[in-house]
Amino acid sequence: MIYQKEITVHTNGRGYHLITQRILDHLDEMPEKGLLHLFVKHTSAGLTLNENADPSVRVDFESFMNELVPENHPVYTHTLEGPDDMPAHLKASLIGNELSVPITDHKLNLGTWQGVYLCEFRNFSSARKIVITVYS
Amino acid sequence: MIYQKEITVHTNGRGYHLITQRILDHLDEMPEKGLLHLFVKHTSAGLTLNENADPSVRVDFESFMNELVPENHPVYTHTLEGPDDMPAHLKASLIGNELSVPITDHKLNLGTWQGVYLCEFRNFSSARKIVITVYS
Amino acid sequence: MIYQKEITVHTNGRGYHLITQRILDHLDEMPEKGLLHLFVKHTSAGLTLNENADPSVRVDFESFMNELVPENHPVYTHTLEGPDDMPAHLKASLIGNELSVPITDHKLNLGTWQGVYLCEFRNFSSARKIVITVYS
Repeated sequence: MIYQKEITVHTNGRGYHLITQRILDHLDEMPEKGLLHLFVKHTSAGLTLNENADPSVRVDFESFMNELVPENHPVYTHTLEGPDDMPAHLKASLIGNELSVPITDHKLNLGTWQGVYLCEFRNFSSARKIVITVYS
Repeated sequence: MIYQKEITVHTNGRGYHLITQRILDHLDEMPEKGLLHLFVKHTSAGLTLNENADPSVRVDFESFMNELVPENHPVYTHTLEGPDDMPAHLKASLIGNELSVPITDHKLNLGTWQGVYLCEFRNFSSARKIVITVYS
Repeated sequence: MIYQKEITVHTNGRGYHLITQRILDHLDEMPEKGLLHLFVKHTSAGLTLNENADPSVRVDFESFMNELVPENHPVYTHTLEGPDDMPAHLKASLIGNELSVPITDHKLNLGTWQGVYLCEFRNFSSARKIVITVYS
């Protein structure tokens, strides 16, 4: 059994956004057991699982990833779309843009502190398409 | 058909641990073809596939990742849980915390040199919960 | 329903290669909805999704990742297989070696600019085995 839905997630722009509840809001009921697959249809945004409690973790993700993958690096040749573009592509592949989460007893089987982050790597993007697939 | 089991994997602490056989020990028989999904229920540990033969690869993973994501970086604000905490969160999202492996002819269809690493990013953690899902 | 096939993908060596069409060439018809899983059976190559239009993105991936994970780093002890070997293992785990893509209406449900990259991290490798699994 496969259930599939494409949604649009809105954010206030660049940063790491906790969207677990917004994903769940699109799932009326989940199977007894299975897997949830999330896929962001963009090359300058990512999806990952990380700490869902203290917002300072998401602030530090933004700061550290900007140090790790700096804007205006001298090796970049793909620069026409702005200084945040090539770093966004690199971050998307380092963080990843899709993930699968187990479903157990009709619920996402996340650890206590795990939440889904939508990672927005561009300065001015505020809406991203995500394909949800549930298989059971 | 979905088979699911939650296990606890014990290690001697921080580092990259080859756990392929320990995963297989929990799978009595595998389907003729399908996929195995592994998911670690924590935000400061990871799962990845890498070299299963020479232990020096796993030593170098520990050394290099500590250089790439240093402790006590000046940008960190999430510091209350110790100097290894924020780096652990960052490494978890860079390496990833879940993966799917094909099953073919009732066996994991890994390359000759591929093994599953449980990546322990905290200093003193020694047990991690992993959800195994086999679908066929 | 699970369909599975192992293929060999040839490239001209080190770099980031767009292989979306080559994957599709091995799939006669896709289910109405489902997921496509791709898995590279090697520890020094990767798979990721990124920009499919401007080749300069793939050039910058090669340049930047070589800066991020340098050859001959003083911490490496796994050096017998050449200066490109340990960096290749590290890149493989940072970029990842497997991914799942939704199938919708008998087609890969990729974003407009998304393509599959085979990331070749070794200097002289020119053929990599990929396991394709389609489940529906």
